[in-house]
Amino acid sequence: MNPLARPGDRIAAIDTPALVLDLDAMERNLARLAGFARERGLRLRPHAKMHKSAELARLQMAHGAVGVCVQKTAEAEALAAGGVDNIYISNEVTARPKLARVAALAQRLAQAGGRLAIAVDSAEGVSGLAQALAGAPAGSIDVFIEIDVGQARCGLPPGDAAVALARDIARHPALHLAGLQAYHGGAQHRRAPAEREAALALACDAVRRTRDALLAQGFGPLLVTGAGTGTFELEAASGLWGELQAGSYLFMDADYAANQLPPGQTPFEHALFVKSQVMSRSADRAICDAGHKTHAIESGLPTVWSPPGLVFGNGGDEHGVLRAATPGGTLPALDDTVWLIPGHCDPTVNLHDWLVGVRGGLQHGTVERLIRVDARGALT
Amino acid sequence: MNPLARPGDRIAAIDTPALVLDLDAMERNLARLAGFARERGLRLRPHAKMHKSAELARLQMAHGAVGVCVQKTAEAEALAAGGVDNIYISNEVTARPKLARVAALAQRLAQAGGRLAIAVDSAEGVSGLAQALAGAPAGSIDVFIEIDVGQARCGLPPGDAAVALARDIARHPALHLAGLQAYHGGAQHRRAPAEREAALALACDAVRRTRDALLAQGFGPLLVTGAGTGTFELEAASGLWGELQAGSYLFMDADYAANQLPPGQTPFEHALFVKSQVMSRSADRAICDAGHKTHAIESGLPTVWSPPGLVFGNGGDEHGVLRAATPGGTLPALDDTVWLIPGHCDPTVNLHDWLVGVRGGLQHGTVERLIRVDARGALT
Repeated sequence: MNPLARPGDRIAAIDTPALVLDLDAMERNLARLAGFARERGLRLRPHAKMHKSAELARLQMAHGAVGVCVQKTAEAEALAAGGVDNIYISNEVTARPKLARVAALAQRLAQAGGRLAIAVDSAEGVSGLAQALAGAPAGSIDVFIEIDVGQARCGLPPGDAAVALARDIARHPALHLAGLQAYHGGAQHRRAPAEREAALALACDAVRRTRDALLAQGFGPLLVTGAGTGTFELEAASGLWGELQAGSYLFMDADYAANQLPPGQTPFEHALFVKSQVMSRSADRAICDAGHKTHAIESGLPTVWSPPGLVFGNGGDEHGVLRAATPGGTLPALDDTVWLIPGHCDPTVNLHDWLVGVRGGLQHGTVERLIRVDARGALT
Repeated sequence: MNPLARPGDRIAAIDTPALVLDLDAMERNLARLAGFARERGLRLRPHAKMHKSAELARLQMAHGAVGVCVQKTAEAEALAAGGVDNIYISNEVTARPKLARVAALAQRLAQAGGRLAIAVDSAEGVSGLAQALAGAPAGSIDVFIEIDVGQARCGLPPGDAAVALARDIARHPALHLAGLQAYHGGAQHRRAPAEREAALALACDAVRRTRDALLAQGFGPLLVTGAGTGTFELEAASGLWGELQAGSYLFMDADYAANQLPPGQTPFEHALFVKSQVMSRSADRAICDAGHKTHAIESGLPTVWSPPGLVFGNGGDEHGVLRAATPGGTLPALDDTVWLIPGHCDPTVNLHDWLVGVRGGLQHGTVERLIRVDARGALT
């Protein structure tokens, strides 16, 4: 396929539509969360399901992250192939053929001095994992018991249910019980700080009860891992979580930008943009070349970063419909560049093979490098 | 990446989540629309933005299609590389670097005995295209003037505005005015037949006025091209359209299935499925491994094809939440297969590199072949 841009290109030369990463803004976000975790003595394990890039995972680890999370076996394989050696599949894997791949990857990473971890929430998942790792050295894989802390998706109910699963895990020397997976996805985008606090208060209670039930039975030490960009300050303040998994902080998106923050807190910077171009103009609208094959819209349409005064309307798979925000407002001309902030970064990045990394800003900067989305489409 | 399946595999062996194509159902849909067009003496040029596959485009042409439509220059390039030699970019391209690619592709296809066509809706678009094709033989590219027939996206207003653009086109011998692009995307999913008929009545009026204005000035003959899976019978009956562009008919999706049909009409068959697997089970829900990185949800969530009695809920990027449709209904067990019908086929296919083509049905069939999504991610 035609390359979107080449290192050294001016911004104007980037083909459209393209996903453009403001490297300066991204690096400030990177340093900010790394500093936050370091100051509090917390482990940082950003979620790489967001960027799916081995290069960015390694960059996060170079800035202090202990490793990264992924959601899929194939994502772990793709990142491992790109040199990432500490990976946590923060999700359940129960199918036998996939567990064979998990076991193979655990052994490959261990041989390279790295480590694989995985979440479980069923006895079947534990026994399948143990079978796949039959004959492997003791402690070949870190296992986190997932508990449902309010999202009603995967995970055991909080409390005693985890004890039986911990006993199952303890029966298999290749499996090392590392702690609890406790992520509240549903709390991340509640707009008011008080709403997020209320959700996290319940999550804290769920974690505390489960942890105490396990400790009372002699299991431990237990690392509690979880948190996202919308709530990580609450998990950090709780004293319960030892590891933060926020991912979107690195790029930010329109959905997270819509969260209200408590006084004194500032949002992460937008680092991820869609560069788009006007390809049709009428009296009352400009049509740009980015639709929902370019940016995911399940968490809301993109917002227009520049030029100002425009509202983005859904134009289908390949088009965006730009109208003036106020009657009589200026519309961009044919071929003008329009910069968009995607509604949701994770599934947007998953639509692209490359991120175009620019240095020096969107207006006057240049293309520094192209960053491969290694795990794009890694669904299995 | 790990292959999803191999030819000869049983259905059970297909890795999940995967996009599975029921080849028998697909071929019945293929034959049905081909027969419809043939019986009425209409040209069929299916929209390949839906399947993005050179193999399927060639299959459609082998069954009588004159060529295919695409929306993007990069899609045209990807399909041409896969041996498709008659392609219509039914969309505006105005950026100079892209127009150079369009011109190069027009000449490449012509040399191979094929043909490229493109839509225009601005004087700038025409002059840019002409400049890119400077020195090319007369009639190197077919040009369709796009008119807005009700969607309020691209296209000139109906009527006289097209005459000035036709004069522009006539000034450049490399450009051949082939007709009118008239597609009403907004009408496709209006649920009641009467709503679609009302929208198409207005579109017919727009086409007639524009065609008559052009014919009165000596332009012609003019081919009117457009129509989608939701309305093609109306365009066909109008006597105005000479070419049908329906695309989704080949796979069908939940959104088109929700259209009400006039008495006597039957829907196309569902041929496109997501094969998914349960990877977490609670008392009140089963969690499957397909979220909106597997299927687009901007036109609605997937419906559950099998097992019966389940409702699919949004579980985010990587998960689906299955609940019983009625209180006390049966939930699938861990590792059970769940078949989904995607809400919208086009952006769903664009998430995948391969379609797993199966023969003999989803229950007892086998994998016949893997079909490459050649233009997956071809956005520019």
